[in-house]
Amino acid sequence: MHSDLPQFRINAVDRTLTPALQSKIDQKTKPVGSLGRIEQLALHLGLIQHSLTPRLHQPHVLVCAGDHGAAKAGVSAYPQEVTWQMVENFLAGGAAINVLARQAGLALIVANAGVNHEFGPRDGLLDAKVAQGTANYLDGPAMSAQQCLTAIRNGATIVRNLAASGCNVLGLGEMGIGNTAAASLLTHCLTGLPLNDCIGRGTGLDDAGLARKRDLLAKALTRWAERNDQPLQILARFGGFEIAMLTGAMLAAAEAGMILLIDGFIVTSALLVAHRLQPAVRDYCVFAHRSEEAGHRGQLDHLKGEPLLDLGLRLGEGTGAALAYPLLKAACAILDEMASFESAGVSSRA
Amino acid sequence: MHSDLPQFRINAVDRTLTPALQSKIDQKTKPVGSLGRIEQLALHLGLIQHSLTPRLHQPHVLVCAGDHGAAKAGVSAYPQEVTWQMVENFLAGGAAINVLARQAGLALIVANAGVNHEFGPRDGLLDAKVAQGTANYLDGPAMSAQQCLTAIRNGATIVRNLAASGCNVLGLGEMGIGNTAAASLLTHCLTGLPLNDCIGRGTGLDDAGLARKRDLLAKALTRWAERNDQPLQILARFGGFEIAMLTGAMLAAAEAGMILLIDGFIVTSALLVAHRLQPAVRDYCVFAHRSEEAGHRGQLDHLKGEPLLDLGLRLGEGTGAALAYPLLKAACAILDEMASFESAGVSSRA
Repeated sequence: MHSDLPQFRINAVDRTLTPALQSKIDQKTKPVGSLGRIEQLALHLGLIQHSLTPRLHQPHVLVCAGDHGAAKAGVSAYPQEVTWQMVENFLAGGAAINVLARQAGLALIVANAGVNHEFGPRDGLLDAKVAQGTANYLDGPAMSAQQCLTAIRNGATIVRNLAASGCNVLGLGEMGIGNTAAASLLTHCLTGLPLNDCIGRGTGLDDAGLARKRDLLAKALTRWAERNDQPLQILARFGGFEIAMLTGAMLAAAEAGMILLIDGFIVTSALLVAHRLQPAVRDYCVFAHRSEEAGHRGQLDHLKGEPLLDLGLRLGEGTGAALAYPLLKAACAILDEMASFESAGVSSRA
Repeated sequence: MHSDLPQFRINAVDRTLTPALQSKIDQKTKPVGSLGRIEQLALHLGLIQHSLTPRLHQPHVLVCAGDHGAAKAGVSAYPQEVTWQMVENFLAGGAAINVLARQAGLALIVANAGVNHEFGPRDGLLDAKVAQGTANYLDGPAMSAQQCLTAIRNGATIVRNLAASGCNVLGLGEMGIGNTAAASLLTHCLTGLPLNDCIGRGTGLDDAGLARKRDLLAKALTRWAERNDQPLQILARFGGFEIAMLTGAMLAAAEAGMILLIDGFIVTSALLVAHRLQPAVRDYCVFAHRSEEAGHRGQLDHLKGEPLLDLGLRLGEGTGAALAYPLLKAACAILDEMASFESAGVSSRA
């Protein structure tokens, strides 16, 4: 199966510009290091773009939606039809990601990766449907190897088109009832963390619901006879079409040298897959926020990701990415617009 | 001295709208509570404005600059003239706060609260100079009671004018070489925290510099013969004109029902004074960020403030307030623009 994966040529970020960027940052009229994470972010963005004046062009957030066969087994607090209803909400402009993307100046792309619903041709909905939702991983693989590759290719194609049109920064989001459960399984299999450390309340399960989710996911693992650690097989076994699509989107975005703004638990599960396939994808990632969803912390530790925000978010949709985006703009502006001690005629340290 | 303080009529925020606001937030198309701190912020802003659709009008950041007599004793890593040089940098648009305020859409007001420099009449510089910097608190009071009240009044006057012109949200910032030392003394005297817990590296003291700062501030305290706990006497003894001006600005802003966006360690020391004078000022405060400066954590604990950002900032100027401001806009937009489950036709929990 691995041989069928589209080729992604992802270069590790060239760090030769580090001294010049750091020197530029240190000469700005402020005590050295006093802008903390904003300085580190400015350095990172400069390295990704190999530029002393990184710039953000045509910023987008890509929200991939998909349904999960296991949702019908009761892994979520919400019924499966909420996935398509929320896609309608995205198309009508009323969801949190619509509001926050508008606020942040991010264009929104909504992609149907595999929702269990017939939308018909619709303005504003990118049709990349692989199937009417995945199969239930309690019974067998969530998707076939071919479906998995199709979803990855679909994500890559969108991003290659975005890159061709000049976009160089991409927030990633998702919608799919049941997808925290899928992300928990992927995270367990890809990081080796104990399963229960990877499972949280998702959209808001109570204690009984959480216990049920834990039982179901433990069962899903025991039923995986051919258990192995190949990332694409793990993805096909437990993933969602939206997660596979995000994996492809990330690989293509890193290949194109884009800045990737990583949202929460589900998006990071897609990154775990991408990272196992191509570790260099990590170089292009800015972690937007630390999610309240249990398991995100373990993902971040595994990837050595330091998120920008810690606001107790657990919504998904790319909302954390949209909320963090102004910090990227701020970091670029600091590099580009702030005076140096010399240019401003300010004395340096005594 | 207390009797000469201008009167500020600050009403505690009316919380009767809490149920209606919370219900509106909970009916938005997202799992209850899933936007975390953004939801709490939306509720807070709604309560301050007593509105289900709080709005941010003519947002400003006010940066007050002043010099400190003690700076010449060696409490800072930078020479005193950096204060006026940085004011020139503000006027030229090249400082971090210029860049970040522009990014955030905040108008910037730079006020000379008492810098040791003759600027002459200058476009863009609000002249509120009480004196050429404070006296050295190692020798006696930093300012007279009358100077302290004048600086407070100056801050109040600016803010009353802003309020009259329609501004309802105000970020607060400062510049003044030596002012972390002053803020440390104020924080110790107003919170009762051990002095050394209130002292940090400021603009970047090394270990020897930090030890020297600690010695000097301990000496300043022992030389305070008439030691008492009256906030205005503490402010006059150790404060800076920029800190006193910020205290007045905060009291007037709360009186006018504005949202106050509190920056870091020095601004919060001004808030400690305002809070002791009028505890209700706290109701109007949004804490922008947790500063790296030692002592800010203790201030926040004392005020029960939960900051929005934790980015390792220790620059001042209001930079943390500017970086947090987009989150306020996001919170208002969530309340105003997001669909409800009913309006969007989305199913609620199973």
